[in-house]
Amino acid sequence: MARIIVVTPNPAVDVTYRVDRQVLGETNRVLEVTRRAGGKGVNVARGLAALGRDPICVLPLGGATGYWIAEALRDEGLEASTTTIAGLTRTTVAVTDQHAHPTLLVEPGPTLSTAEWSALHANIERLIADADMLIVSGSLPAAADPAEVGRMVAAARAAGVPVLVDSSGDALVVAARAGADILKPNLQELLEATRTTSPETALSAAMELGAGLVVASRGADGIIARDHERDYSVAAVGGVDGNPTGAGDAATAGLAAALLEGLPIDEALRWSAALGAAAVLRPVAGDVDLDAFHLFLSRPDTTK
Amino acid sequence: MARIIVVTPNPAVDVTYRVDRQVLGETNRVLEVTRRAGGKGVNVARGLAALGRDPICVLPLGGATGYWIAEALRDEGLEASTTTIAGLTRTTVAVTDQHAHPTLLVEPGPTLSTAEWSALHANIERLIADADMLIVSGSLPAAADPAEVGRMVAAARAAGVPVLVDSSGDALVVAARAGADILKPNLQELLEATRTTSPETALSAAMELGAGLVVASRGADGIIARDHERDYSVAAVGGVDGNPTGAGDAATAGLAAALLEGLPIDEALRWSAALGAAAVLRPVAGDVDLDAFHLFLSRPDTTK
Repeated sequence: MARIIVVTPNPAVDVTYRVDRQVLGETNRVLEVTRRAGGKGVNVARGLAALGRDPICVLPLGGATGYWIAEALRDEGLEASTTTIAGLTRTTVAVTDQHAHPTLLVEPGPTLSTAEWSALHANIERLIADADMLIVSGSLPAAADPAEVGRMVAAARAAGVPVLVDSSGDALVVAARAGADILKPNLQELLEATRTTSPETALSAAMELGAGLVVASRGADGIIARDHERDYSVAAVGGVDGNPTGAGDAATAGLAAALLEGLPIDEALRWSAALGAAAVLRPVAGDVDLDAFHLFLSRPDTTK
Repeated sequence: MARIIVVTPNPAVDVTYRVDRQVLGETNRVLEVTRRAGGKGVNVARGLAALGRDPICVLPLGGATGYWIAEALRDEGLEASTTTIAGLTRTTVAVTDQHAHPTLLVEPGPTLSTAEWSALHANIERLIADADMLIVSGSLPAAADPAEVGRMVAAARAAGVPVLVDSSGDALVVAARAGADILKPNLQELLEATRTTSPETALSAAMELGAGLVVASRGADGIIARDHERDYSVAAVGGVDGNPTGAGDAATAGLAAALLEGLPIDEALRWSAALGAAAVLRPVAGDVDLDAFHLFLSRPDTTK
């Protein structure tokens, strides 16, 4: 079974507060609290596990929140290899009601020391010998050097293991320059990172930087991609309504799982679109509806 | 040195998020995070410790947040006797910027099992033999029976130890009925608990229920009080501007410390007003400016 290392550089306790009605500047009594281990990589790992793959979460964890995440992953049955840090793992808060969009409060995350980064890299380098793929997913903690992602890509390449990076900003550029086999940002992130304004130019820019395959998800507009051979495009699964949070991470999981099966790229993009849509159907980020995934895959009209 | 048990039935990790500008329904990047052990009783204990008294915090703590509070109290040098619970100790979030009032997100707190309540009571009953006062401060966790506060009051009375309760709603009524020596809600809480509309009637109602002394803080309008002898009134310290959060808890600490010194009630109310004002001068809830406290006490115009 394919063994996939999924690095979440800046994990979070994702807290959702349901209130009657959000009011700014006043006391809001919380009616319901849900807590879940979060960070994009954690959701990618959930998607891979749902598909029967064998992910191992690699993440720096610190303080009471870090301890909570380690326990939560264990309770979910997700394997994890953690690097203990002195800082406190961040929390993100989503305030929800029936009247407005959720309000998100996003902490920057702890600063990792040089020694802590080294320990995280050593952990990846130790695991990579037995891995079939390395995935690096999500933002870096505040004040981190984007070169840390480059070092992860280099470790995978040195071991001959394919590496997929879903990040943004300079970290995405560094990953491309380091020769990441697959970049999978959303289109907005790709445009910003490459400082371009058209999808066409953004794909070209990322390929020129050094990526082997660039996959850009565009939500309801589907997925576009490019490798050294040609361009690809897959429509989004139509008529799917629900919670888009985490859908991009499920799409990453679908893409990775299909590529590890040895499927051709356009078929892998269909898996990606189908698993992304299967995540939208579930109210909780990171969950996927497997029956829907298989149904969507069987529809001929999801490719164009 | 006076040994004071301070019970916080529903402690919290008080998190403050500073953002550039609060926007409802969007992503708010947090610029600065501060975390502090909270709950009214914890702030009362801080005020007592600042005055050189010897408080011991008694509180139920559970999960990662409970563990964090236990460590934070230790780091502050506040003694604590905790009852471990299965639920997760709550968090309260204050979102602040320079443009609007803070937005508060207040979790209800965990439900304690019958066995957990029994353990908390046993803890109080064990400590009370060596105590000079019992203080019960703050709300009960969601779904708790107000009778739990009555049981704490009864334990203190059985041990011949004076008991002060600062709570609200039915818990305040139960405390009065159980014969609490001192009730110290704010005026709004007293009016709501006694279902009265005038301060005069509210004080009468609380005394008739069974309290020995009722002290109602009114923020900038000072403090009013009544015992079986007479009425009391103390003006607020004038010209004090700052952070009112936690000022009521400092006022409780000042009142308790003065009464334990054997000072007469009107002098104790002056201590209460002065320590409350000394807390307003400090940006962090629970801190007091001791120099200001002594200065305020020396002013003849704080009583009327």
